[in-house]
Amino acid sequence: MWKNVEHIGIAVSNLKDSNGLFKSLFNKDSYKEEEVASEGVTTSFFQLGETKIELLEGESDSAIAKFIEKKGEGIHHIAFEVDDIHAEMDRLRGEGFQILNDQPKKGADNKLVCFVHPKSANGVLVELCQEIRD
Amino acid sequence: MWKNVEHIGIAVSNLKDSNGLFKSLFNKDSYKEEEVASEGVTTSFFQLGETKIELLEGESDSAIAKFIEKKGEGIHHIAFEVDDIHAEMDRLRGEGFQILNDQPKKGADNKLVCFVHPKSANGVLVELCQEIRD
Repeated sequence: MWKNVEHIGIAVSNLKDSNGLFKSLFNKDSYKEEEVASEGVTTSFFQLGETKIELLEGESDSAIAKFIEKKGEGIHHIAFEVDDIHAEMDRLRGEGFQILNDQPKKGADNKLVCFVHPKSANGVLVELCQEIRD
Repeated sequence: MWKNVEHIGIAVSNLKDSNGLFKSLFNKDSYKEEEVASEGVTTSFFQLGETKIELLEGESDSAIAKFIEKKGEGIHHIAFEVDDIHAEMDRLRGEGFQILNDQPKKGADNKLVCFVHPKSANGVLVELCQEIRD
């Protein structure tokens, strides 16, 4: 089951500048900055209701830097919280969606994540995520 | 005050096809289809938690059709619910954001809405909306 929009990822060229910009926009501080070395990105998070806005600055060869080179700064992906990521991956493959991961991988914030290719989802890069249960 | 992500607008070329696609993706039916004649668009809504996913198909000279021509199908805007749209418009102008409306206009779903130009918001078309109080 798909529960809610967990976060929206926004690709930015300069995290410090964009952090200031979104702080002014939302009239609210970022509550966390985090480096995700495995993805070559530095992130900053704002909370609005049940959804996080995640600003992403990428190193020069990261997926984020390539996205900005091609399309400019802007919305990069939408992440949805699901209750059973393995079951949803199986179901989506059965429906013909192209999943970019064979298995869920460990993402930030103690979550399992996978991505659906934008070509099979109307140009939208869709992330599924599920809280890791101990 | 900015409260939550009210909806995410996705530009699509063919509403019927995309409705089927997102129904398969979310494993959930659209709960409403609506024509907004003033904007030249037809819309379909899915509810996920407190956020709606709004699919938008536009007539040939609509903003949506022009967006797709230029950038392809994909995420078009993010709408945030605020508690006082007039106060936020004043505040944002003071902060240097470019607001695309002089006054809030009446949108779908009994709301007042306005837009922030993507050039002043990191490439993101930001909508503010506020429920109309009787």
